[in-house]
Amino acid sequence: MSALPNMANPAGKPVEHGGDLSAVRRRFPDAPLPWLDLSTGINPVPYPVPDLPRDAWARLPAREQAEALIDAAAHRYGVADRSTLVAAPGTQALIQALPRLVPKARVCIVGPTYEEHETCWRRQGHQVSVVATLDDARDADVVVLVNPNNPDGRLVPVERLVAAARLLVVDEAFIDLLPAAASLAPTLPPRTVVLRSFGKTYGLAGVRLGFAIAGPDIAAALRADLGPWAVSGPALEIGRVALADDAWLAATAERLTADRRRLDEILVSAGFTIVGGTPLFCLADHPEAASTVDRLGRNGIHVRAFRQSPRRLRFGLPGDAASFDRLRTSLT
Amino acid sequence: MSALPNMANPAGKPVEHGGDLSAVRRRFPDAPLPWLDLSTGINPVPYPVPDLPRDAWARLPAREQAEALIDAAAHRYGVADRSTLVAAPGTQALIQALPRLVPKARVCIVGPTYEEHETCWRRQGHQVSVVATLDDARDADVVVLVNPNNPDGRLVPVERLVAAARLLVVDEAFIDLLPAAASLAPTLPPRTVVLRSFGKTYGLAGVRLGFAIAGPDIAAALRADLGPWAVSGPALEIGRVALADDAWLAATAERLTADRRRLDEILVSAGFTIVGGTPLFCLADHPEAASTVDRLGRNGIHVRAFRQSPRRLRFGLPGDAASFDRLRTSLT
Repeated sequence: MSALPNMANPAGKPVEHGGDLSAVRRRFPDAPLPWLDLSTGINPVPYPVPDLPRDAWARLPAREQAEALIDAAAHRYGVADRSTLVAAPGTQALIQALPRLVPKARVCIVGPTYEEHETCWRRQGHQVSVVATLDDARDADVVVLVNPNNPDGRLVPVERLVAAARLLVVDEAFIDLLPAAASLAPTLPPRTVVLRSFGKTYGLAGVRLGFAIAGPDIAAALRADLGPWAVSGPALEIGRVALADDAWLAATAERLTADRRRLDEILVSAGFTIVGGTPLFCLADHPEAASTVDRLGRNGIHVRAFRQSPRRLRFGLPGDAASFDRLRTSLT
Repeated sequence: MSALPNMANPAGKPVEHGGDLSAVRRRFPDAPLPWLDLSTGINPVPYPVPDLPRDAWARLPAREQAEALIDAAAHRYGVADRSTLVAAPGTQALIQALPRLVPKARVCIVGPTYEEHETCWRRQGHQVSVVATLDDARDADVVVLVNPNNPDGRLVPVERLVAAARLLVVDEAFIDLLPAAASLAPTLPPRTVVLRSFGKTYGLAGVRLGFAIAGPDIAAALRADLGPWAVSGPALEIGRVALADDAWLAATAERLTADRRRLDEILVSAGFTIVGGTPLFCLADHPEAASTVDRLGRNGIHVRAFRQSPRRLRFGLPGDAASFDRLRTSLT
């Protein structure tokens, strides 16, 4: 037995993410403040955090509170069988856990997509390939699909999502504002895990809350992997209130749809071609994308670039009229 | 390859914990409200939660914020090398992670103690025994010691804590208010992992925050296992402020020492023998402990009983004079 940890690749190559301003602040030290961060697909107008009871901070989260959150999530996601729902401190915690629970497998990830899937399956020693379409994944034991995809918004219809030989993982992080019929959550097929994110649509990424919907064996294994009190008291309380609030979600969907249209118009006016997206972000193509990143950076605007697609940029939504104007002005 | 998860014992036997009132509420439906929960070792007078910036909820926790938390923890725990410090959403998350990172081993847990250690190592397929003393653990690959121990408060001096053949895990969940020299954190020996809990001393168990202090290989493996954004924005902010507040900690230590003395007096007057404890709880022995649990329950007071030690009860500290009086009255 070695004293060293058990991991195939404990550190791995670091994944680049949107949402961290530390690096651009160093790169553009003279940019006007505050920074306008359009590098994520997080709703810039958060759900209003309710007043939290003192106990949410002070006490260990109780079973009753965890169950009340699951009730709200079942309502929100249209899940009839609550035992299939697992709450976690962010969908990322579930993306970390799944590759630990599956015996060594041939894993196909339909990509390019959110890179943590590939990183986490590889770290656990699985044989991983990134394939261009679902059809290319036919021989895999495990298929991972982000639907709609990040960053291009490609949406595979549910009727095409039949479980692979062993396991199909569908990451629905950006599906909240699409028609309900786009989601697999209400009609969970066998051997399928659906991941739902809380922080993006509700604009509360710092809360750390996400869900898996899975058959009983995988759900039990995920719960055991996460352990007791995995979700914080404030996250239980905020999630419970927000996920039950249908009126806020409907108003938000309307606002984001209008804002997304406005964003597209600004980008097209600036010479971009819209490649795709979701209600929370837009992927756009420009022959001089790299110099656009520089120009925006000097103006204190951070967007997401992709090393492997140098002509493409992902734009999150500005949160108010001033931010829209700032983007428009900086692009022209 | 099986479609089923990879775990030796995914569900395991459920561990009983203090701090969840759901069950006693059902058992004593007529108890006077509110319940007085003395079933945990959590400080009943929490650190005052500071005003949180909106970004703590809304944005993905940034690297700079995570580093500021580590700075505060390094100060608090006397850790010179920040690279040895790992923040997690509660010590429990680290107790879940460690058995995943170590190749199959003979594990000795010095017990009886906090049961999640045994449960988590067993679940990952390790060969686990619970032994009475550190000397009995000499042949193990991995030794787990809770120091001071929960529930009896037994404290092993640091000079006796030399790493086992492979790995020594020292869970210092209740060490905060003991003299600094009792902790291994400032002088971390090789092949040792020290666990420190935030929520107990600071009375903020719902926040979910804990730390490991470990050599670079294990620290890197723990970070990779937890993944990005494991600690919530509010936890980063609250931990950063609280762990830097030496004055609050000193005043709290003084108050808790006086309160612990008062608790002991009440218990001794009621015919209990004090067996041990820490500044945050007391373990006490009474020939009629079971009927005491009933009497307290009917009075809306929840304490921790132990199936395997039916004469023993663990009492957390009441948080104010009225609660002390309620306990005293209910016991006589």
